[in-house]
Amino acid sequence: MVQVAVVTFDGFNELDSFIASALINRCRGDGLEAFITTPAPTVTSMNGVEVGGQRPLGFAAEADVVLIGSGVRTRDVVADSPLLARLSLDPARQLIGSQCSGALVLAHLGLLGAMPVCTDLTSRPFVEARGVRVLDAPFHAEGNIATAGGCLASQYLATWVITRTLGEDAARAVLDYVAPVGENGETADRALRAAGGGGRPVSVSA
Amino acid sequence: MVQVAVVTFDGFNELDSFIASALINRCRGDGLEAFITTPAPTVTSMNGVEVGGQRPLGFAAEADVVLIGSGVRTRDVVADSPLLARLSLDPARQLIGSQCSGALVLAHLGLLGAMPVCTDLTSRPFVEARGVRVLDAPFHAEGNIATAGGCLASQYLATWVITRTLGEDAARAVLDYVAPVGENGETADRALRAAGGGGRPVSVSA
Repeated sequence: MVQVAVVTFDGFNELDSFIASALINRCRGDGLEAFITTPAPTVTSMNGVEVGGQRPLGFAAEADVVLIGSGVRTRDVVADSPLLARLSLDPARQLIGSQCSGALVLAHLGLLGAMPVCTDLTSRPFVEARGVRVLDAPFHAEGNIATAGGCLASQYLATWVITRTLGEDAARAVLDYVAPVGENGETADRALRAAGGGGRPVSVSA
Repeated sequence: MVQVAVVTFDGFNELDSFIASALINRCRGDGLEAFITTPAPTVTSMNGVEVGGQRPLGFAAEADVVLIGSGVRTRDVVADSPLLARLSLDPARQLIGSQCSGALVLAHLGLLGAMPVCTDLTSRPFVEARGVRVLDAPFHAEGNIATAGGCLASQYLATWVITRTLGEDAARAVLDYVAPVGENGETADRALRAAGGGGRPVSVSA
């Protein structure tokens, strides 16, 4: 089973963690599953929803894919060195993605190199202050690192994960299922086009 | 404050409850807020995520807006008469909406009259077995009742709630914020067009 850690901190944005995890979990029958991965047994969302973590933060080190969610307290997260040190990621072995302010975590972990990123408007100045260029786009990937900006772009991040692990047909099947009724083809086309990132086709091999 | 109950049962689909609640909660500063409303102190999603309810089921009777979420156990819900009896809704006073299999709950509560609905493909035969016509569309509203089909159509349900309570400008502002970066206008246009429902403009008065 290919396992995905959806890293979710206190103050998290429900859209960012749950759109990605719910889309990916539609592939459980095909060998891909996602877990809400948290630094404490429970975390509370930006809207006061208390959620039990499915995996502890240490799971991120062993997962095949790690997605860093977003929220209103990401600046506290990156200022917390002991917390960041618990996130031991390896882009040579893992697919790593960020949603919105999650890009700031990737920057602090030194995972971005010279790669430009996508993030949300609120996070943008903080990401730029780390010397990282921000694109006016919803999704950008280079090699095993991907970044998405704008809450609903979390469907593009999930599309990238599914495409990279199971292939484009699997991603299209999920998008077809979750799309608004009657908007199936356009929803899938839009996500697959966006998750192609930077004009390069996404690899369909795991 | 205008209050929205997002009714969420065991086995719920995270997309359905959290997309609607997160979009609506962006309007908290404008006097509109949503709460995950559950029949027990905690509920567990179809993917095993345990979530603490923010309001008990009885809150649905006093809320201004009630949205019935979807999940893999809605048929158990509608077979549970004591549980259904706890959902005391009044379409003369409340805006009432359903997401995917939530339409089955509206049918069992006798709220649909002759109105056709939107739902997902899996729920469709069960809704039709109640004598309700299902549309090949993502969203349909008549008066104070709205139905959405396809997980990601939950953004249209939220758009309807925001438009009906705060007006179209407020809905557009939320959609602009949550859209994938660079897809702001098209995301808002698509949702506002869909939530107009059946060709009739949605009323912008509360």
